[in-house]
Amino acid sequence: MMSTTVSRTPKTIRSAMSRSTPSTVTVFGQDLVAMLGTVNLGDFAYLELFKRLPDERESTLFNALVVTLVEHGVTPSAIAARMTYLGAPESLQGAVASGILGLGNTFVGTIEGAAKICQERLPQSGADRISADERMSDEQINALAEGIVAEYSTDKRMIPGLGHPVHKPVDPRAQKLLRLGRELGFDDSSSRLVEALSRIASERSGRVLPVNATGAIGALASTLGVPAHVARGLGVMARAIGLVGHLLEEKADPIATTVWNRIEAEVSES
Amino acid sequence: MMSTTVSRTPKTIRSAMSRSTPSTVTVFGQDLVAMLGTVNLGDFAYLELFKRLPDERESTLFNALVVTLVEHGVTPSAIAARMTYLGAPESLQGAVASGILGLGNTFVGTIEGAAKICQERLPQSGADRISADERMSDEQINALAEGIVAEYSTDKRMIPGLGHPVHKPVDPRAQKLLRLGRELGFDDSSSRLVEALSRIASERSGRVLPVNATGAIGALASTLGVPAHVARGLGVMARAIGLVGHLLEEKADPIATTVWNRIEAEVSES
Amino acid sequence: MMSTTVSRTPKTIRSAMSRSTPSTVTVFGQDLVAMLGTVNLGDFAYLELFKRLPDERESTLFNALVVTLVEHGVTPSAIAARMTYLGAPESLQGAVASGILGLGNTFVGTIEGAAKICQERLPQSGADRISADERMSDEQINALAEGIVAEYSTDKRMIPGLGHPVHKPVDPRAQKLLRLGRELGFDDSSSRLVEALSRIASERSGRVLPVNATGAIGALASTLGVPAHVARGLGVMARAIGLVGHLLEEKADPIATTVWNRIEAEVSES
Amino acid sequence: MMSTTVSRTPKTIRSAMSRSTPSTVTVFGQDLVAMLGTVNLGDFAYLELFKRLPDERESTLFNALVVTLVEHGVTPSAIAARMTYLGAPESLQGAVASGILGLGNTFVGTIEGAAKICQERLPQSGADRISADERMSDEQINALAEGIVAEYSTDKRMIPGLGHPVHKPVDPRAQKLLRLGRELGFDDSSSRLVEALSRIASERSGRVLPVNATGAIGALASTLGVPAHVARGLGVMARAIGLVGHLLEEKADPIATTVWNRIEAEVSES
Repeated sequence: MMSTTVSRTPKTIRSAMSRSTPSTVTVFGQDLVAMLGTVNLGDFAYLELFKRLPDERESTLFNALVVTLVEHGVTPSAIAARMTYLGAPESLQGAVASGILGLGNTFVGTIEGAAKICQERLPQSGADRISADERMSDEQINALAEGIVAEYSTDKRMIPGLGHPVHKPVDPRAQKLLRLGRELGFDDSSSRLVEALSRIASERSGRVLPVNATGAIGALASTLGVPAHVARGLGVMARAIGLVGHLLEEKADPIATTVWNRIEAEVSES
Repeated sequence: MMSTTVSRTPKTIRSAMSRSTPSTVTVFGQDLVAMLGTVNLGDFAYLELFKRLPDERESTLFNALVVTLVEHGVTPSAIAARMTYLGAPESLQGAVASGILGLGNTFVGTIEGAAKICQERLPQSGADRISADERMSDEQINALAEGIVAEYSTDKRMIPGLGHPVHKPVDPRAQKLLRLGRELGFDDSSSRLVEALSRIASERSGRVLPVNATGAIGALASTLGVPAHVARGLGVMARAIGLVGHLLEEKADPIATTVWNRIEAEVSES
Repeated sequence: MMSTTVSRTPKTIRSAMSRSTPSTVTVFGQDLVAMLGTVNLGDFAYLELFKRLPDERESTLFNALVVTLVEHGVTPSAIAARMTYLGAPESLQGAVASGILGLGNTFVGTIEGAAKICQERLPQSGADRISADERMSDEQINALAEGIVAEYSTDKRMIPGLGHPVHKPVDPRAQKLLRLGRELGFDDSSSRLVEALSRIASERSGRVLPVNATGAIGALASTLGVPAHVARGLGVMARAIGLVGHLLEEKADPIATTVWNRIEAEVSES
Repeated sequence: MMSTTVSRTPKTIRSAMSRSTPSTVTVFGQDLVAMLGTVNLGDFAYLELFKRLPDERESTLFNALVVTLVEHGVTPSAIAARMTYLGAPESLQGAVASGILGLGNTFVGTIEGAAKICQERLPQSGADRISADERMSDEQINALAEGIVAEYSTDKRMIPGLGHPVHKPVDPRAQKLLRLGRELGFDDSSSRLVEALSRIASERSGRVLPVNATGAIGALASTLGVPAHVARGLGVMARAIGLVGHLLEEKADPIATTVWNRIEAEVSES
């Protein structure tokens, strides 16, 4: 198959992420050894995404966003991980991977969707890149939201990041995250946009449609400058942690066999 | 298949991890909303493992251990993730899962191995559970290490957590972590044991066998009370973060096609 | 979270796939025990997809399609599987899963794309559902193909299933599969469509664009009645087999460490 | 990290699996194009494992073994795949991978265990490698089995491949497979060994312990010359097919949301 490779440009294999010498390790140019004991896991995750460490308020907001995503109880992702652990207890990594595989369009998709709206509809996004003069007025945000709600209504699509079966009339996590962003002094255009969408969509539909956790995370990730397509990555890194927790509980107080037995019994009676 | 299920005890499906009401979410009994903005990702990971938040020094040491594991350059795990991303760019979660699947016996195994030695050979392990009176003397630790080195030597097995192809005569990450544990005032029995193993194994073999990063992490995870079988989980949660970083770089500056082309060219010439 | 579940309709959990009694097992209503020794693996795969066993010519064509997909040398998917096996040799299933995860939009996508064109553009598709009167004439097929080529050209998109870096001027696998479909007496509308696309696209572009293996498989899977979204499943089941083969070779004659070392060396020099 | 790579022997990257020229593709030296239309999927799987095509009786037995493993109803592996598909419908390959990850020590392990007993305890194993003179007598097989049952009983371990919650007093699949092996004229030492184990273990324990499907597959895979560590691979390739079937059913008649809702409701009441 030589012709394949001859016709393709020979490229150098490079990576700027990490370097080692006998006495040093650097990650994105930072001295890893110096960071041990001073940088927390969330800040190091920020370094992996942004190639620099966060300042204090970026650290606070970023950690809050990912912490929100770690633990959501016995979700489909946690059920898959526990089922896999039952079959392959020798391979904790396989059970976590099994759970991560469910973090796709259905669940993490709403974070991505909310982030996309913020990043595509607002003239500028990304932390602090907007001067006070450039900030959109509430009237402008409202007009933008009116248009988006009308558009989604015409297409009979749900606006991502709104509504929750349990958390109403407000989702306390969303409320806290949005307040945190403001208290830390971040530009709140994205936050105002999702709040306007919630208000207008609720009025139009006559339903209670609060900004939910994924809507707030989508908006604030946009504020921090996380590209929409990486929103999924925030979920993946957070839930890897939560899934390890679920497997510890599964080992101590297992439910997988019971779930399986019940399903099998019901299927065989059908 | 009813007879199967009749003969198995019907069990309740329970989980103590998370609870929700319309206005609250708790994780292991802690108010999630109150933790947003105050608890970092590493401390939340500690909560998932220990069902309680860490105190300040536990937080410092635990975050240092997992941060050490996040980023190791273009490892087999990162190569697998990048190859998978080339084939399935629609599914970031699949590429991360692919990379996590390689965190098995070969690489994370040495952390487990070092942790097992500490947890099985030391009379008591786990943070602060040892009173000053019960601490093993250096003589006792040395005698223990002598026995272990002799045993592994007889079985012609490598002692896990010692030696590194690049980092010699010392692994700067291990050195930093071990020092950090002492500065924070943790019992250093596990640390002294891996250091004694390094010293004695180096003498016996005539080779340079420093405590490496996995050896230090195995020892200090034991100090914190992380069971050996969960050491693998520390690696999984840390590397999920690092793998997202690798996929961002792969998207911006891809290497997967070049690696593939070169392998294919070499295979077809063989 | 009770309100969630109360508001959702309680549904029965059913599956029509398999039933067991003490002395019998049936799969889609067929006696499994009777099939052992008479039904081959490809026919059983057909049963899983179509809920009935194939007749002889369906068996021949279906087996040929999936056999084509099993083995493609050291692809990105095989590289991922081998890298994962290096890290987690205790978990063959994890290494196969790692390889399967790369069977996404980039590679299996062209089968799906070709199948979609056949299934969306041809008035009727699916084996033998077309009477002789309803068959499209070559003129009609050509006109359809002209339109599709023009459309893709305007959008500057590649037509899926055409062209190959190595197999030119024809892809011998595609040629054989298309001939096989005709010899077995299947309606050849889908085959004529991809052949017309190849001819017209080659003329328009001045490039050599034969129907490749994925184009032929997309067309013939449509003839058999495999929905486009399941084309990916054909690739997944076939490559699971091929990946087991790669892991056997990796165990006997490993390449993963060499690939890793070379990448690491090149990265550290960059 | 140059020193790493310098110290490791530079090795050539080779693979004997597949070769391509513009007009040919070979797999293990066989002409792929010639095999399309004549070789079924099971025989091609045999080629991947044994580097040669099976003869007729090897084909019949091998296909029977893997067909037995394809479909077992709504198992933990199928539940994991369906849960993952709910979360990531864009990625069929991810859902199949999720299901494959559960094929570990618990379920596929009994095939491996039975194969290991046959391959380690019988003086020679592998198809037809035993001349009539060398065949073990029934007395010898019985004595061997007596020893194994005593050994497992002392260690309080279950003998792998015996007993079934539903299929009693015999497992019809095992019975059929063992008969098929004999009808095809294969050496039946492994079959006699698992049958002797069943008989003696049943007598000793007073329980009904038939050879089950995994026991028969472990024995007959040994007869065919499949190494015990590859038994797991037979399960993986077979279940990849079955899992695609489950995802088709899940798409048409979903159960994942119902399973999730019920678990969540029960957990929140606990």
